[in-house]
Amino acid sequence: MSELRQDRTTGGWVIIAPKRGRRPHMPEPGEPPRQRPRFDLSCPFCPGREAQLPGIVAETKAPAPPGWSVRVVPNKFPALEMRQDTPTSGCGDHLATPGRGAHEVIIESPWHDAELATMSAPELSAVADVYRQRSRTLLARDGIEAVILFHNHGRGAGASLVHAHAQVIALDIVPSRVAAMSDWCKRYYSEHQSCATCDELAIECKSAKRLVDENEHFVALVPFAAEHPFELWIVPKEHQASLTALGDHELPAFAELLGRSLRRLQAAANDPPYNFVIDTAPSRDIAAPHLHWRLRIAPDIAIWGGFELGAGLPINPSSPEDDAHLLRAVDAGP
Amino acid sequence: MSELRQDRTTGGWVIIAPKRGRRPHMPEPGEPPRQRPRFDLSCPFCPGREAQLPGIVAETKAPAPPGWSVRVVPNKFPALEMRQDTPTSGCGDHLATPGRGAHEVIIESPWHDAELATMSAPELSAVADVYRQRSRTLLARDGIEAVILFHNHGRGAGASLVHAHAQVIALDIVPSRVAAMSDWCKRYYSEHQSCATCDELAIECKSAKRLVDENEHFVALVPFAAEHPFELWIVPKEHQASLTALGDHELPAFAELLGRSLRRLQAAANDPPYNFVIDTAPSRDIAAPHLHWRLRIAPDIAIWGGFELGAGLPINPSSPEDDAHLLRAVDAGP
Repeated sequence: MSELRQDRTTGGWVIIAPKRGRRPHMPEPGEPPRQRPRFDLSCPFCPGREAQLPGIVAETKAPAPPGWSVRVVPNKFPALEMRQDTPTSGCGDHLATPGRGAHEVIIESPWHDAELATMSAPELSAVADVYRQRSRTLLARDGIEAVILFHNHGRGAGASLVHAHAQVIALDIVPSRVAAMSDWCKRYYSEHQSCATCDELAIECKSAKRLVDENEHFVALVPFAAEHPFELWIVPKEHQASLTALGDHELPAFAELLGRSLRRLQAAANDPPYNFVIDTAPSRDIAAPHLHWRLRIAPDIAIWGGFELGAGLPINPSSPEDDAHLLRAVDAGP
Repeated sequence: MSELRQDRTTGGWVIIAPKRGRRPHMPEPGEPPRQRPRFDLSCPFCPGREAQLPGIVAETKAPAPPGWSVRVVPNKFPALEMRQDTPTSGCGDHLATPGRGAHEVIIESPWHDAELATMSAPELSAVADVYRQRSRTLLARDGIEAVILFHNHGRGAGASLVHAHAQVIALDIVPSRVAAMSDWCKRYYSEHQSCATCDELAIECKSAKRLVDENEHFVALVPFAAEHPFELWIVPKEHQASLTALGDHELPAFAELLGRSLRRLQAAANDPPYNFVIDTAPSRDIAAPHLHWRLRIAPDIAIWGGFELGAGLPINPSSPEDDAHLLRAVDAGP
């Protein structure tokens, strides 16, 4: 019934265990559709509430009021900061270092009721452009080794404010998952003289079993070793190690596939909470032949419990092939 | 404000970022106290509902009705099974293996309203004895490399049935987290000629900053590099690689500290959902000098989002020292 599958691009294994019949009390995917006002007076990300923000780092200007479409602000409760003068608690007995880096918030729309899934193509392109711009700016900073850009959608996925926003955390170390993926892909490259993701894309495009969508520059697919029900990757067709290398001519294609993929997920899985993250090269590998960036959407449908905590081996109760079929069947619009 | 800390026993890093003031919309820990009946006619784990079970693997007999106190049954929806004759979907293009192993459920009490935190000392000892017995039995099976024993408490932590139960998954591979921890501890041992956990216990018992509780044979502490708010480890004081080596004379001390720790968590963190898992040696390292088993309680208080997904680096919004102080202050009873 179940099988273990290995992800070619990370080396990670997963247990694929689609439910026989139904698991007892399997949580229904999805939350009720959100009905939010266009403005919320208590929301610090809404226009007119700027006094609640710790500052404005960057803005994409727009001709219509409120004059901006995407805005970057410092995180009010940063996990990391550039200046850290406090001594650590290591005291010789333990290894500890100050949490150096940056933590920004990308407010993706002035409107409280906007969502990535329903934004227009130009709006989404403007958001994707800011993702690229912040990654470039932060990676260029002295001492920054890696940037993690992510978006949490829905309370269940850790979004503490509903107003659409992404977050960027820049670190002065390469965090463990990024380092492990880079090591794995480097080994793969030296064994095969090819990029693991390029190889995977060739196989997936040929088999088409898990392919969900594509356009001129990008492919959307459910990965062979998906860790989550309805997991989706959006991958550039041409080899590209870092989001920062994304060309202006490719940006609209990326935004288009992101919007369509989120609408497919919303329709096929009843608008579940989700996280997405951009897996992209650390600064030391910014143009590496072995790394290939992607946007990875992880719907928060199956709850991970003690097994995943102890084994480090996810159990996906869903079949990636069935999930791809359901996602493909959605009419996702333009 | 924040710092990165390394766990001596796994090599893993964590960002400790206690909230300044309050994070916006930080979820309140805890669920309302459960008021459940002593029997639930719709619960397959209650006495008299045996027809709904796929079988009974083992039972701890009890003199009073219903005649048993702890019961082991096969999981009705197993993630892994011993017999797997179906071919995998690898097809040469991908690496996949059948999901071979076993998946059992340990029903920890006949009573629908029982909870580990409020069980009597003899009841908890009987449960712990079954943990040890199933670990011994499954690890002795041909081809089984590792056993993951875990308990999910509360719907938010993935418990699909409220009736108190643990699960055991036996695997024919060493899962990634267990393998990585074993490799790390082996390297530590060859560098220091000592067990990383024994060293950590010596430091923690001396500093007492994160120590929560202890008795003759066990220590309960919040780890230096805790990944979760109110994370708690219960660790044998003497070096012991595997739960299977736990002596009969040590069993009541383990059960006592488990009960007290869960009551402390319940009182200090408003009865949060939690997972616990027993980190114990795989069969190849069953008596290794470098591994040291423990029970690890991970309260489900902070939601992990896109950052943890991308970085593999947990952010703990709580201070381990403050958490230990709060847990220590609870009157946990006998």
